[in-house]
Amino acid sequence: MRRRRIGEFELIARYFAPLAKSFPGAGGLLSDNAFLPSDARRDLVVKTDTVVAGVHFLADEKPELVAAKALRVCLSDLAAGGGEPFAYQLSLSLPTSWSERWIAGFARGLAADQRRYGIVLSGGDTVTTPGPLTVTVTAFGRVPHERGLTRGGARAGDRLFVTGTIGDGALGLLAARGRISSSALEKRYRLPQPRSGLGPRLVGVASAVADVSDGLLADAGHIAEASRLAVRIERERVPLSAAARRFVAAEPVLWANVLGGGDDYELVIAVSPRKQAALLAAARAAKVKVTAIGTFTRGKGVELTIAGRPVRAPRKGYVHF
Amino acid sequence: MRRRRIGEFELIARYFAPLAKSFPGAGGLLSDNAFLPSDARRDLVVKTDTVVAGVHFLADEKPELVAAKALRVCLSDLAAGGGEPFAYQLSLSLPTSWSERWIAGFARGLAADQRRYGIVLSGGDTVTTPGPLTVTVTAFGRVPHERGLTRGGARAGDRLFVTGTIGDGALGLLAARGRISSSALEKRYRLPQPRSGLGPRLVGVASAVADVSDGLLADAGHIAEASRLAVRIERERVPLSAAARRFVAAEPVLWANVLGGGDDYELVIAVSPRKQAALLAAARAAKVKVTAIGTFTRGKGVELTIAGRPVRAPRKGYVHF
Repeated sequence: MRRRRIGEFELIARYFAPLAKSFPGAGGLLSDNAFLPSDARRDLVVKTDTVVAGVHFLADEKPELVAAKALRVCLSDLAAGGGEPFAYQLSLSLPTSWSERWIAGFARGLAADQRRYGIVLSGGDTVTTPGPLTVTVTAFGRVPHERGLTRGGARAGDRLFVTGTIGDGALGLLAARGRISSSALEKRYRLPQPRSGLGPRLVGVASAVADVSDGLLADAGHIAEASRLAVRIERERVPLSAAARRFVAAEPVLWANVLGGGDDYELVIAVSPRKQAALLAAARAAKVKVTAIGTFTRGKGVELTIAGRPVRAPRKGYVHF
Repeated sequence: MRRRRIGEFELIARYFAPLAKSFPGAGGLLSDNAFLPSDARRDLVVKTDTVVAGVHFLADEKPELVAAKALRVCLSDLAAGGGEPFAYQLSLSLPTSWSERWIAGFARGLAADQRRYGIVLSGGDTVTTPGPLTVTVTAFGRVPHERGLTRGGARAGDRLFVTGTIGDGALGLLAARGRISSSALEKRYRLPQPRSGLGPRLVGVASAVADVSDGLLADAGHIAEASRLAVRIERERVPLSAAARRFVAAEPVLWANVLGGGDDYELVIAVSPRKQAALLAAARAAKVKVTAIGTFTRGKGVELTIAGRPVRAPRKGYVHF
């Protein structure tokens, strides 16, 4: 039985229908279904992500930031797939204590990101739960037919590039928890900046792409594994923000967080030497910094070097603190 | 930070990747994104539904039935939209106490319904939650370009038809709770039977369609409201199963559950008199019984009649017991 809190229809009409009004296929959210019009030349790229209060974001996070985080982790994956985002489905599981004020803030956050990324709400579901607030977004993008980017296309000899700076997400989590002090890093953790402007420009340029959500070593490793290759990363080439550089210099153990933590939402990009100029041009056009940090080779696994010498890489993927 | 239980990759590889192997765009679930190929002649119809343990299904429900329910409530909506289902995204929020045995049963349930409905897993997300098990499905179907069905197309003079029998879902919930005794009704509640075979045949035939998830009066009312009409329903024409007829005869107060409860996952269909023969032919082809139970007229609201006399309709939508 779909037991819906009294007022679900009003809640949708007041806060969510306005977010869908420019998308004809959403039927003003009065329809159960969303209709996405056919497009002969472009495939759909689809990504689903779930975030849970107290697990994927701080339990007392502002509703605007919860909305932004839920959307942006999906948009980051679409960017890695080369997708131009255009719509999303939203499932909202609200604790029984939900307030209209919280919903209003959440809807404001969605509206701001709709403008920022050119997306629109196409449909979804709202339920109540005895558990924590849980948000599932399924985001839709478009890519030229059969040219979507995956982790699986890297070749031996490809260079590994990364966008922006690495480690700010993981250090930002430490900042959010009061372990270190940096409002810039904390903001970076709370509000990811997906590379939506660059992603579509990588189609036909990159041979494989992933976003840095599990950590640089893990996500570069995912490309290597899916492409049946090894990847070598030179630590001194990994681009750090000024704040990250300062914390790592003072406390070198934090390199484990920088390389092994996640939540950067940068892109790791495999590119053949002959496409390198095209990558740099795409990055300039998107106003995104890219840095070469390594190379794909025959073999298996992730190798980290410091001053040319291989070191034991920190454990891949999420590191518990 | 995406904190994933150790073993998420193994869990996906073992239980979910096999469910995606016939869908090339899923990339064996190794890719973050799913790619749905373009189709020039058909639009995509999309529906998202979330079910929460202890709210939308019994907390100790078998995992096979949880899988079936989560999928089928979505497929029911796609059927109402005229969609031919073909793929779905799955988000699974697992309580920290999850067992591999539970996952295996859940995956078996998904696999059985994939065969039954011709669908395949295209992607998704798995997280752990301190709250109850929560499943969000976003299902994809295809409809001829710009011919998807909505609630909004009924016209004054259209007849209202309903598929199958009504009230078994709500009475089945009473049976599942031990309030009445009927294994047939209980099964009907636990395992919805969406009208996926009929839905696509209604394109070009029905003027408006909804599925009966909130209750017959509520869902017929949704069509009336979206079409800016009134609807009159003759109670004696509402088709009941033999079991439902027996309970209602013994305890007429249960009519409120039959007409006001939900979870039937039948379709309510508005059809113009000149398309009525086509509807009956479509129903025969799909081997689904359809019954005329009312009429759309100018005006507003839902009117229930008994032996031609209007009565106060039970409260619309979900009725708490």
